[in-house]
Amino acid sequence: MNNFEFYSPTKVIFGKDVEQQVGAEIKKWGGNKVLVHYGGSSAKQSGLLDRVEAALKEENLKYVLLGGVEPNPRISLVRAGIDLCRKENVDFILAVGGGSVLDSAKAIALGVPYEGDVWDFYDRKASPSEALPHGNIITLAATGSETSSSSVITKEENGLKRGCNTELNRPKFTLMNPELLYTLPPYQTACGIVDIMMHTLDRYFSPGGINEITDRIAEALLQTVIQYGTVCMKDPYNYEARSEIFWAGSLSHNHLTGLGRMGDWAVHQMEHELSGMFDVAHGAGLSAIWEAWALYVYKEDIMRFARYGANVWKLNLNYENPEETALAAIQATKDYFSSLGMPISIPQLLGKKATDEEMREMAVKCTFFGKRTIGGIKILGEEDIYNIYQGANK
Amino acid sequence: MNNFEFYSPTKVIFGKDVEQQVGAEIKKWGGNKVLVHYGGSSAKQSGLLDRVEAALKEENLKYVLLGGVEPNPRISLVRAGIDLCRKENVDFILAVGGGSVLDSAKAIALGVPYEGDVWDFYDRKASPSEALPHGNIITLAATGSETSSSSVITKEENGLKRGCNTELNRPKFTLMNPELLYTLPPYQTACGIVDIMMHTLDRYFSPGGINEITDRIAEALLQTVIQYGTVCMKDPYNYEARSEIFWAGSLSHNHLTGLGRMGDWAVHQMEHELSGMFDVAHGAGLSAIWEAWALYVYKEDIMRFARYGANVWKLNLNYENPEETALAAIQATKDYFSSLGMPISIPQLLGKKATDEEMREMAVKCTFFGKRTIGGIKILGEEDIYNIYQGANK
Repeated sequence: MNNFEFYSPTKVIFGKDVEQQVGAEIKKWGGNKVLVHYGGSSAKQSGLLDRVEAALKEENLKYVLLGGVEPNPRISLVRAGIDLCRKENVDFILAVGGGSVLDSAKAIALGVPYEGDVWDFYDRKASPSEALPHGNIITLAATGSETSSSSVITKEENGLKRGCNTELNRPKFTLMNPELLYTLPPYQTACGIVDIMMHTLDRYFSPGGINEITDRIAEALLQTVIQYGTVCMKDPYNYEARSEIFWAGSLSHNHLTGLGRMGDWAVHQMEHELSGMFDVAHGAGLSAIWEAWALYVYKEDIMRFARYGANVWKLNLNYENPEETALAAIQATKDYFSSLGMPISIPQLLGKKATDEEMREMAVKCTFFGKRTIGGIKILGEEDIYNIYQGANK
Repeated sequence: MNNFEFYSPTKVIFGKDVEQQVGAEIKKWGGNKVLVHYGGSSAKQSGLLDRVEAALKEENLKYVLLGGVEPNPRISLVRAGIDLCRKENVDFILAVGGGSVLDSAKAIALGVPYEGDVWDFYDRKASPSEALPHGNIITLAATGSETSSSSVITKEENGLKRGCNTELNRPKFTLMNPELLYTLPPYQTACGIVDIMMHTLDRYFSPGGINEITDRIAEALLQTVIQYGTVCMKDPYNYEARSEIFWAGSLSHNHLTGLGRMGDWAVHQMEHELSGMFDVAHGAGLSAIWEAWALYVYKEDIMRFARYGANVWKLNLNYENPEETALAAIQATKDYFSSLGMPISIPQLLGKKATDEEMREMAVKCTFFGKRTIGGIKILGEEDIYNIYQGANK
């Protein structure tokens, strides 16, 4: 195993009705005045926001509300949230919603004690040194943002989507009630399943030598998600299936499934450009380009793709021709994404082909205008990235 | 999935030479004056203690040393450590050693700010409300104490061995260098392997309904330990094998492999009486009684034992007669323990049979003198516990 650090200090409270504990939890972490940050109308209509307010009042906590977070959360709302927190002397931020709401809340938490513009942290112009404490009630199984150290924000002026990773982004607690997922639209459920799988796949397909326990846990997680993802799509009110996917979503992005591996992340990074430019759902974007990426890189480590086929998809590993197993595993993954109703090409994603100009622009943005390469199993430069977009544009 | 909480805030720093970071880590957590707590002469002879002292000096940290922790750590040394910490104004405790040293350090951390006798926490007469911060350099793959909330101490006056579980027992950090395991005596390596397996088995064989991801992770961990445990015994300087077992040891007791299950713990609790009375190694005691326990309880959930056989031992699951698979899985486990050189009965453990009187005494102590039952897959009272000791006494 390569050297690694593992730090996942977020307290997870998982199960039915756990959102009722939110006031008590915030108090344990020293909160007095809370910003309740949420998205659109569903948190209101479902009654969740009412239950949250009741739980806060029960503990005599003061709070202000800030809704309106959209998918691919905007820097403008983050800035508005920072202003509101300063004005209202907020000392704890509670996110109620999906990954976008949580990422937006994390950005606000970073921005409140910072004198400059919070975008500096996303643009790598500055590193954060403090943040307000924050926790969440997560209503989507997807991003793993409920325990992760990452936050991704979009600067709408130029369509740039950038991530900021810092231990300060770790939530103090997450309250995970699988019942809150029952009413998700099927498309969002499917996007979440792809995202969860990709958080593990982007770690699994990367260099790292022998990391047997990490690999086996990754395979255990993928098998569970594949099995229960299908159940969720057919039977959205299935508590067991929602539970399995929900917890897998957290574990898939707390780094447990990548310890000792360097991580690849090329698919994620290429997708950030896609959703930055076209405002598509993250999971759908990942699904649309994964196969093209896999076919472009698998020859760098055929045995790894073959092992994936054997251990996750239960294919017979053809030791005489492992490439056959590797290609069958890529096909099985693509077919599974498709069975969830996810796009498996850029035209399926956008309803039209991307233009050559658009793909060129995404490729150069993805290299931070020539400042970086991406990937691990295969190092990818601008031309490679362009080739993969093209491979997915059929 | 049943409701659960998961909280494992300990920062893990894993790999070659990580013990050199100890001074910097203690500083990050606010320590100024450190108690360095360790066991026998091996920490000195190996040069580890010298490296620790150098790392503390490099960060200008003051420290005092307290060695002498024995296996099944004694309350008398804990009390001496508490006195020393008070006298020297220690504000951080660093454990350097195996599970016994860590458990002793946790007890000292609990005792320093407490006015009464620290044994109160182990005897359930009081609950701790604060503790000194503590971290560790763990030199044994076994107990999982490096990230766990538990501490087990023996009161030598009457041979009572008791555990105290509290979030205050969570170490701030653990530094895990697999190379430090190279020189462990084979018997200790084997005891550790059994202990690691048992931390997961005692969770796995307990009621909990559908917890697919927890079960699959448990199975992934067990498969890894079984594979690399054998390698460690044959090739103690194998870095990869030591790494796998080391990290599995932590994961096996941070509760990841039991989330949603109630946990059984009967084997652990029966073993505490064995090692309390006979001062045997914990892992060897577990190995000596597991088969007798399994044969006594497996009919309560034959399919679970059969699944264990299929998924961990790769046996063909006989759906027409799953009892056959269940019994084969029990046999495979026993054979594996034996292949590690571990005792698989009480006579093998002690070199003689236990007397009827001794088994009766252990059984009654194990029920806290009639105050509790133990177990989950099957609830066990004094008579059951006695029967299991007898089953292992052949």
